[in-house]
Amino acid sequence: MKTLLVLLFLICVPATSHARERVEKYGVHEIVLQGKDAGNPFIDLELSATFTKGADSFSPEGFYDGKGTYRIRFMPPSTGEWRWVTRSNHPELDGKKGSVLAVESANKGPVRVANVHHFAHADGTRFYPFGTTIYEWAFQPEDKKLQTLATLRASAFNKARMLAVPPYKPNYLSGPGKLTEFPFVGTSRADFDFSRFNPVYFQNLERDVKRLSDLGIQVDLILFRPYDKGQWGFDTTSDAVNQRFIRYMVARFAAYQGIWWSLANENSYIKHLSDEDFDRYFQIVQKYDPYGHLRSIHNADRIYDYNKPWVTHVSLQYYNAVKVFGVSPLLRDIFRKPIVHDEINYEGNSASRWGQLSGEELTRRFWIALLGGAYATHGEILDNGWIGGGGFLAGTSPERIAFLRKIVESGPPEGLRPIDQLFVMNAAGKAGEYYLYYFGDERPREWPFVLPVGELKKGMRFKVDLIDTWNMTVEPVPGSFEIGELTRYRAADKNLRVLALPGKPYMALRIQRIGAMPQGESAPQPGAAADD
Amino acid sequence: MKTLLVLLFLICVPATSHARERVEKYGVHEIVLQGKDAGNPFIDLELSATFTKGADSFSPEGFYDGKGTYRIRFMPPSTGEWRWVTRSNHPELDGKKGSVLAVESANKGPVRVANVHHFAHADGTRFYPFGTTIYEWAFQPEDKKLQTLATLRASAFNKARMLAVPPYKPNYLSGPGKLTEFPFVGTSRADFDFSRFNPVYFQNLERDVKRLSDLGIQVDLILFRPYDKGQWGFDTTSDAVNQRFIRYMVARFAAYQGIWWSLANENSYIKHLSDEDFDRYFQIVQKYDPYGHLRSIHNADRIYDYNKPWVTHVSLQYYNAVKVFGVSPLLRDIFRKPIVHDEINYEGNSASRWGQLSGEELTRRFWIALLGGAYATHGEILDNGWIGGGGFLAGTSPERIAFLRKIVESGPPEGLRPIDQLFVMNAAGKAGEYYLYYFGDERPREWPFVLPVGELKKGMRFKVDLIDTWNMTVEPVPGSFEIGELTRYRAADKNLRVLALPGKPYMALRIQRIGAMPQGESAPQPGAAADD
Repeated sequence: MKTLLVLLFLICVPATSHARERVEKYGVHEIVLQGKDAGNPFIDLELSATFTKGADSFSPEGFYDGKGTYRIRFMPPSTGEWRWVTRSNHPELDGKKGSVLAVESANKGPVRVANVHHFAHADGTRFYPFGTTIYEWAFQPEDKKLQTLATLRASAFNKARMLAVPPYKPNYLSGPGKLTEFPFVGTSRADFDFSRFNPVYFQNLERDVKRLSDLGIQVDLILFRPYDKGQWGFDTTSDAVNQRFIRYMVARFAAYQGIWWSLANENSYIKHLSDEDFDRYFQIVQKYDPYGHLRSIHNADRIYDYNKPWVTHVSLQYYNAVKVFGVSPLLRDIFRKPIVHDEINYEGNSASRWGQLSGEELTRRFWIALLGGAYATHGEILDNGWIGGGGFLAGTSPERIAFLRKIVESGPPEGLRPIDQLFVMNAAGKAGEYYLYYFGDERPREWPFVLPVGELKKGMRFKVDLIDTWNMTVEPVPGSFEIGELTRYRAADKNLRVLALPGKPYMALRIQRIGAMPQGESAPQPGAAADD
Repeated sequence: MKTLLVLLFLICVPATSHARERVEKYGVHEIVLQGKDAGNPFIDLELSATFTKGADSFSPEGFYDGKGTYRIRFMPPSTGEWRWVTRSNHPELDGKKGSVLAVESANKGPVRVANVHHFAHADGTRFYPFGTTIYEWAFQPEDKKLQTLATLRASAFNKARMLAVPPYKPNYLSGPGKLTEFPFVGTSRADFDFSRFNPVYFQNLERDVKRLSDLGIQVDLILFRPYDKGQWGFDTTSDAVNQRFIRYMVARFAAYQGIWWSLANENSYIKHLSDEDFDRYFQIVQKYDPYGHLRSIHNADRIYDYNKPWVTHVSLQYYNAVKVFGVSPLLRDIFRKPIVHDEINYEGNSASRWGQLSGEELTRRFWIALLGGAYATHGEILDNGWIGGGGFLAGTSPERIAFLRKIVESGPPEGLRPIDQLFVMNAAGKAGEYYLYYFGDERPREWPFVLPVGELKKGMRFKVDLIDTWNMTVEPVPGSFEIGELTRYRAADKNLRVLALPGKPYMALRIQRIGAMPQGESAPQPGAAADD
């Protein structure tokens, strides 16, 4: 009889049938089984385990990890004893049983859609994505990876877009950046065996995903990508290979609480995959991921229909949508899902015009996205090439994005919502309680205290902060404001008070009701420092 | 045996089985049958005729028109002899046979989607919608209807949005505007019989639809509407009544070439109908309309998913989308259907803020819509109340919209397409041949002759017109421009020539390639006057 090993993730603990295994709630519990290495266990294998606790049941698929080792991973979504039994077409893997005790932890669990257009962890903690883009960081030498992790640790970014498969580039073929491991067995187009995954490659990728996750960074993991230049063939694999790849990725990664599935980057540039192919691929992810991690796809010149039921949120590349006010509210209304502008051009000095933004302009676009009740993702391509391999940040926007994050996280917990969106394009918050006005590159000298009338009542009092979004200052405006008579659309200060503004660009106003501090849920979230 | 009458529409011509009936291609051929008036022929009736010519076959439904008269209407889409036979569950209407000869005509046929984001008549003639809104004109006294028709005849509007069912308003209850006919039998909430349509009401509506159509105006006919204020009950009829109503409308109106189906106005305000209800209603229209007239729905605060396959085009109410450049291209990419901004606020002095635009601003929004590769619809609510009952136009925008229509109709026949849309937000046309730049309310003093590089080659020559969109002038810029060396993104005049602009708002530039007058299809369309 084979030895049955039950492991806490990455910690080998030999077990007997009597030992009481423990795993953190939302942690990764791993069943390790030894089996045969014959045949092709990437193709022929059927392996899963059903974890049961009372009426709850999850059946993650297992996967072959090479050298006769098979693994099944489980993320317990609640505390208590989970009993499991395996099922396999390999007799030596079938019918194994055990149990694991899930215990309380500080884990917040996977991020879900909350309040239609926003996000929260499974434990209810709100999550406001302020992402960045490091497509190829996992394919860099270890010293650069460590630099990337140190940079992220010091940043405010809490989501990272990264490729699961490297793009074809000459620097990966020779020299210090030469890649030795690939998703498939083999090292070049000539000898890639698309019927066999390379476990070492995925073990490395897992380690990097886990390292991001340990920093509290959500990993927006991109399954398919173009960028193959006809060289390796990773973007022209057959439908059968693609389906196996998806199931293998899901089996390996779904138990990580911080995973988001990005079906593709710039999907339309993968010429041989249609939207209908991605329909099926989405549904495979949906079927095999027991935890329902977020699912989206990132467009190039053909926008996938985000209304399809298996898409959880919009992951858009459409620069116009954040250059001007008013577009994100429209996207919210069209899709009724969270809108994440996952590429809004990059701060940079690239020869390519998508990477030529000033820090001021990238910051402005972030504010416009947030004022539209949406989210945005950072990228930088100064001489460092951050969006490719990571490393260090040299731009001026990350600090301002961190400042914006503080503003947002100390605002209404349910997230910013456009206020009177069809007639007032630069206001968001929570009507009656909290208003954020942003003036972009306009340089107003004054602002009459006039709010859209919704939820307001005569006599309500407000305090105002003048925010310099570029210099990152928050300056309380002396005194308070009191709502006077309401008109059909507007409510002004009873004394028609007008605020003086400094005539500088990138200013904002934060207007908060006095004595209306929302209860409970609206207290600052863990990790969300107030900005004043 | 009953007398069988075959009629040319609205012209009673007694026929025998030997007479050779004639109808214009895309005209309306009507079979008139006499039958019983017993029971409820609005509910119990099954009646259709199958018209056959070679392999082509159409089976429009018939309808009961009161007083024992049953009608089946047919719009022949091609010339030649169409043989028909009726089918009915009323024996006296069943198995009738005949034929009609469809002859050439000047009719252009129904408008279809063409070139993904644009429109053309069935005969291939391009159609660029420049619509207006006269929701209630069909419910006005005859003298006002005649005034409306005269106004439209003198205007450039070629599409009209109108309600098929009146809204509840006090002025329809008494006085000179009192309505005497309603869609259902009865005259008040107390006695409406929702199981019986009122043929006289629909006969009147048909006459008005036909009068618009005779002016060359497409009729965007709105089937369901809110605006009932809980009074007549027309927006809370049962699903069975709604389905009968749709089939009755389709049976009566589908043979008119100029019909567009608008499933609803501000659908979300009809509280008891969900998007799923409209899914079914769309499909009923689609099933029973043999000619596939255009189908859309017009939103209020919940946007129907225009990606659904039975929607032919977008009929949006979202003002932000035409206040700023760059949104229509996004909508085009999201829906891959024509985008019609069917409400962009109205020129007016209304107490309601949706009706407070200056003529300048409404005109600006039209230009922004067209520059985005989309279309827009006019409305006016000055003291005249045009958007309600029609009558006369008092605004300053219609003349400018007419001017814009001339510009568009003398441009690329396939319609304006955004050019380099993610980086140049105010240019449309046809790359390499025709560019329209619009500056909105900016007041530039100069414009360097620099075009996005797509389709351009060194040595190509262009002529430029300076267009004052408000004063409606087209002024050729002296000399010509020649493309010099191309850079990665841009092509400038070889002498780096810079155009002087007058520093006025609402200016545009039209840039046309010299010696590249497109062949054939791009010749001006019938009725499309060149503007210079």
